Order: sequence, then C-alpha cells, then structure tokens
Amino acid sequence: MTYCLGIINRAGLVLAADSRTNAGVDYISTYHKLFDFSIPGERVILLCTSGNLSVTQGVINLLKRELQTPETDNLNTFSSLYDIAGHIGAKIRQIHDRDREWLERDKIDASCSFLVAGQLPGEISQLYLVYSQGNFIQATPETPFLQIGETKYGKPILDRTLTYDSPMEAVAKCALLSIDSTMKSNISVGPPINLMMYHADTFAVRHKLTLRLGDPYLAKMRKSWEESLRQAFESMPDLEWKHQPQASDEDIFID
Amino acid sequence: MTYCLGIINRAGLVLAADSRTNAGVDYISTYHKLFDFSIPGERVILLCTSGNLSVTQGVINLLKRELQTPETDNLNTFSSLYDIAGHIGAKIRQIHDRDREWLERDKIDASCSFLVAGQLPGEISQLYLVYSQGNFIQATPETPFLQIGETKYGKPILDRTLTYDSPMEAVAKCALLSIDSTMKSNISVGPPINLMMYHADTFAVRHKLTLRLGDPYLAKMRKSWEESLRQAFESMPDLEWKHQPQASDEDIFID
Repeated sequence: MTYCLGIINRAGLVLAADSRTNAGVDYISTYHKLFDFSIPGERVILLCTSGNLSVTQGVINLLKRELQTPETDNLNTFSSLYDIAGHIGAKIRQIHDRDREWLERDKIDASCSFLVAGQLPGEISQLYLVYSQGNFIQATPETPFLQIGETKYGKPILDRTLTYDSPMEAVAKCALLSIDSTMKSNISVGPPINLMMYHADTFAVRHKLTLRLGDPYLAKMRKSWEESLRQAFESMPDLEWKHQPQASDEDIFID
Repeated sequence: MTYCLGIINRAGLVLAADSRTNAGVDYISTYHKLFDFSIPGERVILLCTSGNLSVTQGVINLLKRELQTPETDNLNTFSSLYDIAGHIGAKIRQIHDRDREWLERDKIDASCSFLVAGQLPGEISQLYLVYSQGNFIQATPETPFLQIGETKYGKPILDRTLTYDSPMEAVAKCALLSIDSTMKSNISVGPPINLMMYHADTFAVRHKLTLRLGDPYLAKMRKSWEESLRQAFESMPDLEWKHQPQASDEDIFID
C-alpha cells in the first residue's frame, strides 16, 4: 500500500509520501514515491505515485526517456500543468495497453494513480490527481488537498484543520501527521517519509525532508502530538449525560 | 454505511454508534444501531449492529422473540458473554440461511457484524465482535477497542490516545470524537450519535447520551477540538528542513 498527499495553499504547496511497497504482507520493500522533475529557476514539477509498482515505474521511465529525446513532447515542453497531467494520463494508458491484459489474466490489480503538483511560468501553483484510467481532477481552494493510496486514516486531520490560508509550516506539519497517523494504523504504509514544501513563484523547491525509521524528529513529533491530544480531551466540554435512575425507565435505544 | 465502536477499560466500557442507514446516496434514513438488552441490577448486554439492515433487524427480532418464549435459550439464560456472542453468531447464520441466496442473486451484500458488550455475574466486563460468518473475537487490554462498519477514519484517534487505563470520561470523549471524525469524512455516517458508558460491577448502564443533528454540544465539542488541534500544531517541534541551495544539487527523490 501507499499513502501520498498533496496540499495547495495560497502561499504554495506541500507534497508528502511514504515509501513502503508490499506484495502481500510477506514481501515488503522500500521505494521512493515522490519524484522531483523540476528545473530550478524555470519550472517545478513534482509527482507522487501509488498503485501497481511495475505500472508506476513504467510511467516514470517513459517520462525520463522522453526527456532524453528532446524532439518528442516531454515534461519540459508543455506550457501548462494541466497538459502535463493529461500527458501522464496518456502514459498510464500506454503502459496499461501493454501490460494490463497479462496482469488481469492472473487477477493482479494493474491500477495506479498519480499526484502532479508544481508551477509553470505564467500559471499559479497547482495540484492534480491523475486516475488509473488517465482522466484527472484538480484541487481547488474549497478542498485544498488530494490523496492517493490508503487515504482514509489520514483524512480526518486534514478535514479538521486545513484551509487554503493555513500557514505553510502548519500545512507541512499537518501533512506529516496525516502520513504518521496512516503509518500507525496501517502497517503497509511506512517510512521513510518524504516531504517537500514549495513556495509559490519561487520556481525552486527549497524545502525537502526525509524522515527515516527511528528518526528522532518523528518520535518527538508523535510524543508532542499525543500529549496535545490528551490535553485536548481535558479541555473538551464535559459530556452532558442523561443520567439513568437505578432501573432504566424507558429504553431509548430499543425501538 | 455505519460506524460503531466499543472500548473496554479497566473501569468499564463505552459503546458508541451513529444512526445513518443508506441504500445508495439517494436513500438515506435513520435507524438505531445501539441496543440495550440489560436487566438492571442483574446483567448488562449491549449490542451494536452494522451491515445489511434486513439481516441485522432479523437478528435483533429473533433475539427479542426468544426473550418472549422463556423455554428457549435466550439472552437472559446464558451465563457467559462468550456464549452470547456465539449465540448471536448463530442467529446471523440463521438469517443468512433464509435470505442470503436471494440477496446474492441480485448482487446485494448480505454481510453484517455485531459488537456485543456487557457484564454477566461472575465475569469481568467484556467486548466481542461477531463477524458476518458467525465467528467472533474478543477485545483485550493490548487493543482495547473494536470497530464495525466504516472503521478507518475514526481509528487514528483511538490508536493515538486510548489505553486500557485511560479515565472513563476521556474514553467516552474519545469515542465521540472518533464517530465525529468519521461523520465529517464520510457522509454515509451520520447523527444522532448514541453513546453509553458502563462502570464495571454496577450491573446497570447509568450513562446514556444521544446527540442529534445540530446539538449544541456537538458544535461546542468540534470547536474545542479543532482549536486544540491548531494549538497542537503550534506546539509541535519545528520541522528540520534540509534546505536546498539555489539550484538543487542532487535530486534525492529521483532514484
């Protein structure tokens, strides 16, 4: 499994990904799922991948090869991130055309998804989710995040705390906690965690972070967070119980 | 969908359930999913239900009928909660024997699950999860909660904060927040929320709570919680970014 997360913000964007890949519970390995195709000073293009590893590696490989044959359309020739999202969708379809029938014959799931984030000259910074079918959606200020992979465990913290105007450092911490919550609840999501923060209009990703297993920051963060949650319970308003007499008069919970 | 949650504790137990039932997104209704079959002063038996409503209602109906024909085995004749969990499993199998073939013919999911919690004389308070197949597991101090239905959104807060020794009021607040997080992230889980807290060895459920849509406590709780989360971000240790020079020297995120 995988968990990757992109967040757009008035001030830029944040991308985060775990690194665990598994084929069953008895074959677990580590792969990067966060890729930086930026040309510093010119364009920022970040990708996250989820799903069948042979398919996502196939797509990344195609994208890299195209960069080495400059006469073809490639990540550096498009003038809009929207077109890049569509291009990645086309690459997914290309790999699926080649492999999917063979995978499905053995009931292997060929699905995958990509987050595409960044900024091209003349555009604001943007975030897209490209589905396994090659179609795609864009994050908007109303729902400023998109997730791929094991999305549920890490969603409540985003739903509760993120806005388009949250301070960037808080957004990055929120992304990290969202990944950490998922790692804690699903063993198929695991470290290292890769995190990137991009400030809009700088056209260079200056903030990167890799947190490995046993990283003291991860331990400190968890401790601080869990302590805060415990304090939060204490500051929550007291429950207003409907106190029952000795014998329950009327059983409100049976129809 | 549904989300129900049971938590055991050194001091007793807490059960919580939402009340939303849906057949697709265009048919949503409200049903109790938390049932109290206790005899105050003698035995405490609480049930939560999840899954196909005709099946769970069928099981509850069988259990009620048996209580009216005292010569049969029924919830009040068993001397152990373990046996009651097994009995409920048998009732699920009985309804499945009757209906499942007909449901599956139209690709309708007949699965369901139950939480069974309470205390019988001579036993400590206990919590079981009965699966759709009729088999069941018991909560233990190491993992003091069991969930049924839409379990993922509400799990991180339990994983992060619950222990077998947490104070009961904190456990109840935690259960409420776990349900509330799920409601916020999945529209097919919805109010009213029903909550029960049972203090071990009292043999009566004296704390019950129903929070309806728009209940001021729910709004207060959400506000307090979200405020606490924001403060928690602020008190989190600062991220130790690996600052990138103007042009990224080495791209650590590309293999």
